[in-house]
Amino acid sequence: MQTRRAFLASTFAASLAEGAEKPNIVMIYADDLGYGDLGCYGHPTIQTPNLDRMAARGMKFTQFYSTNPLCSPSRTALLTGRYPIRSGINVVLFPDSKGGLPSNDITIASLLKGRGYSTACVGKWHLGHLPQYLPTRFGFDSYFGIPYSNDMSPATSANPNRERKNSWAPTPLMRDDKVAESEPDQAEITRRYTDEATAYIAKSARAKKPFFLYLAHTMPHWPLAASAAFRGKSARGLYGDAVAEVDWSVGEILKALEKAGVAKNTLVFFSSDNGPARLGLEGGSAGLYREGKATTWEGGVREPAIAYWPGRVPAGVTTPAFGVTMDLFTTFAKLGGASIPADRPIDGQDISDVVLKNAPGREPLLFYYNQGALRAVRSGPWKLHVSACCTQPGGADRAYKDQAPPLLYNLEIDPSERHEAAAKNPDVVTRLLALIESHKKSFTPGAPQT
Amino acid sequence: MQTRRAFLASTFAASLAEGAEKPNIVMIYADDLGYGDLGCYGHPTIQTPNLDRMAARGMKFTQFYSTNPLCSPSRTALLTGRYPIRSGINVVLFPDSKGGLPSNDITIASLLKGRGYSTACVGKWHLGHLPQYLPTRFGFDSYFGIPYSNDMSPATSANPNRERKNSWAPTPLMRDDKVAESEPDQAEITRRYTDEATAYIAKSARAKKPFFLYLAHTMPHWPLAASAAFRGKSARGLYGDAVAEVDWSVGEILKALEKAGVAKNTLVFFSSDNGPARLGLEGGSAGLYREGKATTWEGGVREPAIAYWPGRVPAGVTTPAFGVTMDLFTTFAKLGGASIPADRPIDGQDISDVVLKNAPGREPLLFYYNQGALRAVRSGPWKLHVSACCTQPGGADRAYKDQAPPLLYNLEIDPSERHEAAAKNPDVVTRLLALIESHKKSFTPGAPQT
Repeated sequence: MQTRRAFLASTFAASLAEGAEKPNIVMIYADDLGYGDLGCYGHPTIQTPNLDRMAARGMKFTQFYSTNPLCSPSRTALLTGRYPIRSGINVVLFPDSKGGLPSNDITIASLLKGRGYSTACVGKWHLGHLPQYLPTRFGFDSYFGIPYSNDMSPATSANPNRERKNSWAPTPLMRDDKVAESEPDQAEITRRYTDEATAYIAKSARAKKPFFLYLAHTMPHWPLAASAAFRGKSARGLYGDAVAEVDWSVGEILKALEKAGVAKNTLVFFSSDNGPARLGLEGGSAGLYREGKATTWEGGVREPAIAYWPGRVPAGVTTPAFGVTMDLFTTFAKLGGASIPADRPIDGQDISDVVLKNAPGREPLLFYYNQGALRAVRSGPWKLHVSACCTQPGGADRAYKDQAPPLLYNLEIDPSERHEAAAKNPDVVTRLLALIESHKKSFTPGAPQT
Repeated sequence: MQTRRAFLASTFAASLAEGAEKPNIVMIYADDLGYGDLGCYGHPTIQTPNLDRMAARGMKFTQFYSTNPLCSPSRTALLTGRYPIRSGINVVLFPDSKGGLPSNDITIASLLKGRGYSTACVGKWHLGHLPQYLPTRFGFDSYFGIPYSNDMSPATSANPNRERKNSWAPTPLMRDDKVAESEPDQAEITRRYTDEATAYIAKSARAKKPFFLYLAHTMPHWPLAASAAFRGKSARGLYGDAVAEVDWSVGEILKALEKAGVAKNTLVFFSSDNGPARLGLEGGSAGLYREGKATTWEGGVREPAIAYWPGRVPAGVTTPAFGVTMDLFTTFAKLGGASIPADRPIDGQDISDVVLKNAPGREPLLFYYNQGALRAVRSGPWKLHVSACCTQPGGADRAYKDQAPPLLYNLEIDPSERHEAAAKNPDVVTRLLALIESHKKSFTPGAPQT
């Protein structure tokens, strides 16, 4: 297995023309945004003209996944290209957590930096806030942002971790590895991240060096906030205001790329870390999908995703091709001419042919983890839940329970997971259970960091 | 009231330049297609590239309504510009129904014919199949199609009207006022309608006369069918195949308009008659909306809707502006230079400023009828249900019951109708109940025809 992987890694690098101009890559990640929350995914009253235009001139995915339905593990997968339990990031990190991303983990920022990229992280990190876990230790030249969730402050009265929170520090806004401000005004945070990102784009373009910008918005994670220009402007309430400001930010990024003259050499990818928080009107919409954040129903992991690169990403394509955030690690590495690490399993696959050539995509084989446990698998059209919560649509039962027999759905014909089909397809159940067993045997979780 | 209406009608006509070139109008109506069933409304596995492109180059509505959640009343409203109970079309017509559209009803086809248009109806009529009710009696120069629903045949074994159906004739395919075929192969019906429609476009363009084409597809109404080119091709099963063929048909219509050289002088409007039939995997998806066909929850009446007219309809706009099928009567009349009838109440309003100028739209005041009874009202963001079925999401209780107290939802912030808000907004409830009372007092239903 290692031999084959090393071989693939070397041919992979060799296949790239050494002299080719390296594209800039901008990854924009929203927080807790649901599949149904954008105009181009059918939301009726949240207006997202910039993202809609990006989709109309680029590629919109309808079967793109977050690797995990929670913030910290989801971001681990995006940046390391691996199931997050390989890194031991199994649940969400808190301000009193002592752990974070293991020091030997390799992020896409490190890989691209090794190929001559300048790199910046702006926004929510959430892979450890202690000095040894910050973005600048993982390949990012600079960092500006709130290092964990915006509700993790003693000032946030409704935080469920009531007893712990009294020991927490005020919400920090960091510049590189220093706290620059305490309890920054969150209504200004989207605008400030955007200013930082657009300045970085202008500076990097002037330096004539390829760049990787990871802009991870704090919004629309609860507690919701928007600047004066957006507050009260959306018909969808404060949630819609916050999404509208993220959409504005996307427009500013695209404008900054144009202004700096690098739009035609920059891939912009937009997605969200997990499905909508199930907070009633303060959470988003999963559209036609069942449930939301912190579940392995489709509402927890199926994400809006848009790829944009004028002249390179085919325009106006809506693709059902499969993709998962882990794949972006491998895909960005390929675009930047970096070899993926050969000394460890990398779970993400290269989907550059989907993004650049509208290829049909790889076999959608995906294991769903939540809270460090494997809950479900998708293979082809089928999804098997071996452990599920909230088994009635909209049900209040939030605890995960082993499902015996497991629950089977055909996601291609039944994306809303309404028609359980195990009894009619025993052979599929058997095959998927075998896939899970085989995966577990070949798989070594890392020591828990959370 | 009549005086004011007559005055409006005359100024309305006078405001149109007599010499202006009249646009062609093509109205494409799908059957039982849900809000969530197109790629541009977020469906993951039904691919609709032609409709998606039409939306990207035209205007996509997110708050467009059918006037009624059932076939016959919905079509009555579209064609007459009035609440269908004014015509007595309260439920669905069957092959043994003796009624149909009253002879003194005025359709948009009649109005446009009076202004020099040639007119054609292709597809499902469902406003009466006896000679006196056919399209050719209501302003259409020609008709080709199945005059009622495609499941209304003795050959359709699962029809719920089991006892009645033994007396029914075989499904007729009509040419003008004659039965041309019995039990046509429904797998060919979308293709045949399309051939008829594109031939009509070519012929009309050659005649250099403005035309109005009403293409009302039989699909994707149950029993589902698709031609060999589409059957088995969609990941979404036969339902997806049928929608894909309707999407293909849209592409053929747009190509025919281009080929005939009239694309730049033709408004194409696409929508559906009501929400998805609740037939499990044989029915469509309402997306983020609650319930479906035959209910006055949003899933029953909120429709996909796309306006397309190169150079006239702003391109790439997603609008939350309000519209309802009745409005198309008034809007098409305006575009064709016809006065709306001054001798009767017309409920539809002119939304040409929305379609042509991306105006914000009129006050969304809408009374929801089903089975001849007023069930709900929408005013601004609010919707009040005074009579509702299936009061639990996904609930099996299909019977309508008076709701006392009524159920209130804010559709702008809660489009999925999950957060009942009557107790917190007693003033809104009072205002909306008063609106209903006032509407009922001013309103005269027609004699039932169904």
